[in-house]
Amino acid sequence: MNFAVLGAGAWGTALALHLDRCGHTVTLVSRRLEHAAEMASSRENKDYLPGAKIPPSLQLGHEIMPALMEADAVILACPAKALRNLCEEIASMRESSWGISAVIAVCKGLDPQSLDLPVEVLKEVLPHYPAGVLSGPTHAGGLAEGLPSAAVLAFAEDSQWIRDLQGAFSNDAFRLYFSDDPIGVSLAGSLKNIFAIACGCCDGLGLGDNAKAALLTRSLAEMVEIGTTLGGKRETFSGLSGVGDLVATSYGPWSRNRTFGENLAKGKLVEDQLKDRKTVVEGALSVRWYRERCRKMEISTPILDEVYSLVYEEKDPSHALRDLMSRQLKSE
Amino acid sequence: MNFAVLGAGAWGTALALHLDRCGHTVTLVSRRLEHAAEMASSRENKDYLPGAKIPPSLQLGHEIMPALMEADAVILACPAKALRNLCEEIASMRESSWGISAVIAVCKGLDPQSLDLPVEVLKEVLPHYPAGVLSGPTHAGGLAEGLPSAAVLAFAEDSQWIRDLQGAFSNDAFRLYFSDDPIGVSLAGSLKNIFAIACGCCDGLGLGDNAKAALLTRSLAEMVEIGTTLGGKRETFSGLSGVGDLVATSYGPWSRNRTFGENLAKGKLVEDQLKDRKTVVEGALSVRWYRERCRKMEISTPILDEVYSLVYEEKDPSHALRDLMSRQLKSE
Repeated sequence: MNFAVLGAGAWGTALALHLDRCGHTVTLVSRRLEHAAEMASSRENKDYLPGAKIPPSLQLGHEIMPALMEADAVILACPAKALRNLCEEIASMRESSWGISAVIAVCKGLDPQSLDLPVEVLKEVLPHYPAGVLSGPTHAGGLAEGLPSAAVLAFAEDSQWIRDLQGAFSNDAFRLYFSDDPIGVSLAGSLKNIFAIACGCCDGLGLGDNAKAALLTRSLAEMVEIGTTLGGKRETFSGLSGVGDLVATSYGPWSRNRTFGENLAKGKLVEDQLKDRKTVVEGALSVRWYRERCRKMEISTPILDEVYSLVYEEKDPSHALRDLMSRQLKSE
Repeated sequence: MNFAVLGAGAWGTALALHLDRCGHTVTLVSRRLEHAAEMASSRENKDYLPGAKIPPSLQLGHEIMPALMEADAVILACPAKALRNLCEEIASMRESSWGISAVIAVCKGLDPQSLDLPVEVLKEVLPHYPAGVLSGPTHAGGLAEGLPSAAVLAFAEDSQWIRDLQGAFSNDAFRLYFSDDPIGVSLAGSLKNIFAIACGCCDGLGLGDNAKAALLTRSLAEMVEIGTTLGGKRETFSGLSGVGDLVATSYGPWSRNRTFGENLAKGKLVEDQLKDRKTVVEGALSVRWYRERCRKMEISTPILDEVYSLVYEEKDPSHALRDLMSRQLKSE
């Protein structure tokens, strides 16, 4: 199969390396010419995935068109905030890219303008292609190293071609499960970032393993409540893209959202943390939108509300966590 | 309220300290005279919970009868294998202990003779008392230190007295949720030990965060399948005693079952690990019984089967994990 991977951050690069290892023809596209040139000469993505050797078989480029012209499937590996623009570019090249049979978004977050989920952006801007999302507890470093990983590939429609695609992604190290709930998978991938901030706070305050496990459990319940109200299927949140990714992000030392929460608890200011970063803290952005939606739908979201107060109202992290722990006793 | 805590291991001691802090009259009973005497003179449980000061208000003893005579509620904090004997002793003292209004088991495992769950042992041997279980992601050290924790108190029947009991256990640091599913809570507390062994193996083999999160997710699905077939309620496994305790036990460096799995992967023999321990690796014992039950019920339990092979068939841990990761692709 021929894959175009658009976006050469850590996760796009790891996926490209993996697909190359599976024997596919892969083109990894970085939009910045100097980044593409640097990768081509060093055969390494030093900016985002240092240490992983890029083999000669993996093609590198900085233009979308040549990659699209040959692609059977396109992986959209840009940040959520750049997804709509990228989709519009792809739409404008439709006549030259007649071989594309699926587009797959792998970012986790919301479009900051429309507040649409990635799969909604695909459906709107690229309605003529089957639109899927790939998500799960998959830190880029682990996949790049060839360590065992598993994730979910979600398309609203099922077909032999989609199942072939699922198989094309899979080898001994990487298992891909099929889901028919791209909305739920997208919601889970976006929501878990918010709860990972709360878990990071718990780490930063040194509240211990018991508090963190309790917070994670209540986070999952809240994620299910929000996610199902917004159109996801309940079982999706019990799967790899739900509880699996929530656990990985809340316990992984590499997680940006967890680290953001940990640093908040240690006194680092929100604005200082957000301005310094090459990468995005999705949970700090999306919590605002989710809070508004949840209020309109009259869903009770105590953890999400505290994360909102931490990020936008300068609430003291120890007060936020204390308020969470002292809520009224009730049945689970 | 007056509590008798029978069993002065780490968890019994931590609960006694907590209940004393809540202002209750508490007697902590160690069955070994020399252990009780040592605790009374040092005001510390050096064997099982070193470092936590036992205040003068907490009464210590080594005989059950005096504690039972005054108790409103009895906490059974012995290992699962000693529960039946302890219950029989309590039953024999019924005439002297007329004030008891609830018995609560806090052990996680199975009775090795009858293979009954703790709540089933209580119902059978002490049918005249309301029988409950207390379970959740609660490492003894955290509760003893007064760090925030949350757990579940499960009784088959609900009443004002049970709700009072729930309130009596709770303070700012410790939140207790009510559940009406003691069977599910008991099953979750027993099953998570088995899956923590698999997660420990994953740690020992250095398979990374992605593999561990994927394994934990599939473990949860398997736990739900087994637990609901055996009579637990589905929602119990999404709660503190289910996913909460599974995460805490699978990620906690202090977890005996996780450590057992990690050491297995590093080449330590099963028999050497089991003979050396003052404490019990519940998952290594109960996996045999669950495997037999699951075979009879024709439930597919790939992770549990691999743990069985690791413990009882000397299967190589790297082969076990490889076999898990390379199972046929399918929907979640």
